[in-house]
Amino acid sequence: MTRNELIQLIRNKKSFLCVGLDSEYKKLPPHLLDAEDPVFEFNKAIIDATIDVAVAYKPNLAFYESEGLKGWISLEKTISYLNRFKDKVFVIADAKRGDIGNTSAQYAKAFFEIFDVDAITVAPYMGSDSVQPFLTYPGKWVILLALTSNKGAADFQYLKTDERNLFEHVLMQSSQWGTPDNMMYVVGATQASQLAAIRSIIPDHFLLVPGVGAQGGSLQEVAHYGMTNDIGLLVNASRSIIFASNGKDFAEKAREEAVKLQFEMKTLLR
Amino acid sequence: MTRNELIQLIRNKKSFLCVGLDSEYKKLPPHLLDAEDPVFEFNKAIIDATIDVAVAYKPNLAFYESEGLKGWISLEKTISYLNRFKDKVFVIADAKRGDIGNTSAQYAKAFFEIFDVDAITVAPYMGSDSVQPFLTYPGKWVILLALTSNKGAADFQYLKTDERNLFEHVLMQSSQWGTPDNMMYVVGATQASQLAAIRSIIPDHFLLVPGVGAQGGSLQEVAHYGMTNDIGLLVNASRSIIFASNGKDFAEKAREEAVKLQFEMKTLLR
Repeated sequence: MTRNELIQLIRNKKSFLCVGLDSEYKKLPPHLLDAEDPVFEFNKAIIDATIDVAVAYKPNLAFYESEGLKGWISLEKTISYLNRFKDKVFVIADAKRGDIGNTSAQYAKAFFEIFDVDAITVAPYMGSDSVQPFLTYPGKWVILLALTSNKGAADFQYLKTDERNLFEHVLMQSSQWGTPDNMMYVVGATQASQLAAIRSIIPDHFLLVPGVGAQGGSLQEVAHYGMTNDIGLLVNASRSIIFASNGKDFAEKAREEAVKLQFEMKTLLR
Repeated sequence: MTRNELIQLIRNKKSFLCVGLDSEYKKLPPHLLDAEDPVFEFNKAIIDATIDVAVAYKPNLAFYESEGLKGWISLEKTISYLNRFKDKVFVIADAKRGDIGNTSAQYAKAFFEIFDVDAITVAPYMGSDSVQPFLTYPGKWVILLALTSNKGAADFQYLKTDERNLFEHVLMQSSQWGTPDNMMYVVGATQASQLAAIRSIIPDHFLLVPGVGAQGGSLQEVAHYGMTNDIGLLVNASRSIIFASNGKDFAEKAREEAVKLQFEMKTLLR
């Protein structure tokens, strides 16, 4: 999905909500446990109940890998299901991958060719060549979070920071690797006070903001300091939405929580 | 596997060789492609051919994830096969995971309970709470490689580095999170000149050293600067061993390369 398409999607839905599909097996509503694939049934119901108020979905890989092969199958089915709504949702694999260049290229293949998601979260510690392979796919995005044997090690790991924090160095340097059309950044809502400084470094990039909801971050503060003329925000809530109830009404209650956030977002959109 | 067991294994085999199972599908010997699971058949043959001269095996997850579900199955079978040799090999999942605490706990479950490997590589950027969940499993290891919404963000990301490089901060701080009995560090062989400085910070920890072979690092230099009285080194070679030939003699040629390295290691062991 291109940047313009994403902005339009946000304007159409009047929402910059991302629903985090941290669908931990042992937290699922008990009545779903008899299904052939409880995790997929759960995700499908959550997606169906929230798709008109959410612009993005973000399965976190950890919650699928922890169930072994079964979890990987649930993940594939969930992403396939999301991909049916290609122009209506932005799909993020929250995988925090990153390795030396030829290896990152394999991760890029996994997520952008096999899974065909719109974006993947990537860890910055290993530097530029660990990120570049993800930036070669048109319409696909890196969402980025400092000695190793690869060339990119020099980017951060030997850095003598001066007045700047490491994360500011990460922003300054990595923003040269791609463009606001193929890179976003993870900035936690619990760090909202840093958003003004961050915006002075990357005025245009979209930010993926976790930490609203269960982790206690403020949506108003995030919008106040982080929003741009092109919105520039995707705010994620996971547990506060998907585990709002673990009864038979779980999807309905999830929707209620999503609608509450979307209502607040609507008033914040310029 | 405990530290003492690992040291004994190294002394018994007179080897600190780790074979990296970066088993990229398209680089496999063509005659294997008709097998039901070519990647597993390849790995099994490589393991069988090298197990008397290698102490560790390290599948890199990227090369399995890039084949989708099929790749995940090949990985499971490979690790199951390695686990048959429980006290004879140290198994490392090269996954470079790491996330906020509750999520890292899910990764720990995936790798230490489901896969039951001995060690997992972890990225440090997200700080202590992203690493701690991996340190709660007896006999299991973290092999560790800086603004996020989690508490651990304060550990590195706001760091005003003074005379020190970030990686030295990573070493100093993270070595307090665990012990030389449950933490190792990735230090590239291409950075051998840094090994003396690294040993002044962490005199006892094992180092997992990639970069010998295809990446050009020197085994002698690594041993000179990095070896301790308890050896303290696992040196990894991947492509130079496993892809030594892509003919029907691939396993035999892989063994020849592994034996060459092990012969050199034997002379370096004190």
